[in-house]
Amino acid sequence: MSSIVCLTSGGMDSATLLYKARDLHGSEVSAVAFDYGQRHIKELDYARRLCDTIKVPLDVIDISSITPHISNSALTSDIPVPDGGYSNANMALTVVPNRNAIMLTIAFGLAVSKSISIVAAAMHAGDHPLYPDCRPEFVDSFNSMQRTAVEGFGDPELHLWAPFIEVSKSTIALEGYRLGVDFAETWSCYNGREKHCGTCGTCTERREAFRDAHIEDPTDYE
Amino acid sequence: MSSIVCLTSGGMDSATLLYKARDLHGSEVSAVAFDYGQRHIKELDYARRLCDTIKVPLDVIDISSITPHISNSALTSDIPVPDGGYSNANMALTVVPNRNAIMLTIAFGLAVSKSISIVAAAMHAGDHPLYPDCRPEFVDSFNSMQRTAVEGFGDPELHLWAPFIEVSKSTIALEGYRLGVDFAETWSCYNGREKHCGTCGTCTERREAFRDAHIEDPTDYE
Repeated sequence: MSSIVCLTSGGMDSATLLYKARDLHGSEVSAVAFDYGQRHIKELDYARRLCDTIKVPLDVIDISSITPHISNSALTSDIPVPDGGYSNANMALTVVPNRNAIMLTIAFGLAVSKSISIVAAAMHAGDHPLYPDCRPEFVDSFNSMQRTAVEGFGDPELHLWAPFIEVSKSTIALEGYRLGVDFAETWSCYNGREKHCGTCGTCTERREAFRDAHIEDPTDYE
Repeated sequence: MSSIVCLTSGGMDSATLLYKARDLHGSEVSAVAFDYGQRHIKELDYARRLCDTIKVPLDVIDISSITPHISNSALTSDIPVPDGGYSNANMALTVVPNRNAIMLTIAFGLAVSKSISIVAAAMHAGDHPLYPDCRPEFVDSFNSMQRTAVEGFGDPELHLWAPFIEVSKSTIALEGYRLGVDFAETWSCYNGREKHCGTCGTCTERREAFRDAHIEDPTDYE
């Protein structure tokens, strides 16, 4: 059975990914989460509880010292988080430049050092209009780059696995439901207040996912 | 004139790169250096003095919190730094897994946020036997990956420039000499003691570079 490390944010997509990985890889699953100075840092508490609950070891890596050098994103500054769907023009304010490539290269460093075979991430089809580093072309080119970058070190089969890359968020919700994910114990909202705001980009996507999947939404919105 | 940010370590190759970039891009040059928990952290003092001297703005980014998660390298732990040339088998101890990809993705995030056109790095032909992320295939695949990762953000022409990728360290020494680099004010040694040890991998390469270039070596070795 191959060893796998899942990028985990505490959200519903990466929670489903973790359950899926555990289903396929049993005890060979571990998780990694990043503190990148996000306003919704409380998502990491959800990631920790999730991993505790299903007994998956979690590495939380602090990269918050990087963010001031690369970003004026609403996710990491005082700029208000915009409301609406991911296709709205103002959603570009939620882009942290090169965030996925940065997190994934660090995850690959970790995977090499521990001889892990797979790095998994939960980008999905709904992310495509907004985030270039959530598209299939990115996954393919990232894998090509990593094959050259660590050649001769770690597992020669090491690769990025993004099983939801062509999958809608509502289909992920259905898969998570089937796998037994407790969505009440996941966090999406970019605002990171006591409750989910219900109107920011990721809350909008979350509500639509449950609605389209015909699953009861357990989220307590403001 | 295109704006350019140079990865700078305080060593002789990246010092030459910085002078070369200044020669080509004038005041559009900036520099970035990384604290990754390296034993030879004093190299960053050399980077700071170099940038002060030639009046190039420098960002030092602290990624030392990442290293414990990814590395047992001799560069970042108590493992003794091995002696000898880069082709020796024990030199693999000096590999920090995925280091260049991690630093470069962060530099690309910085470049996107500042609309910089070029990220420059000083990998050279002598690095090829040991470090997979210093080879031409890596530079090509990294550029492909970055084109997809930040599409629609920053300068559309943004790319990695590695002008020394097929160049020997002695040829870099010659070019630095021609450009006026003060090599006495550069630091190579992995041990990071008061003086260059003269026997570790990078000291060995440094001595050979000056010898092969027929340039006087200004280094005060132990």
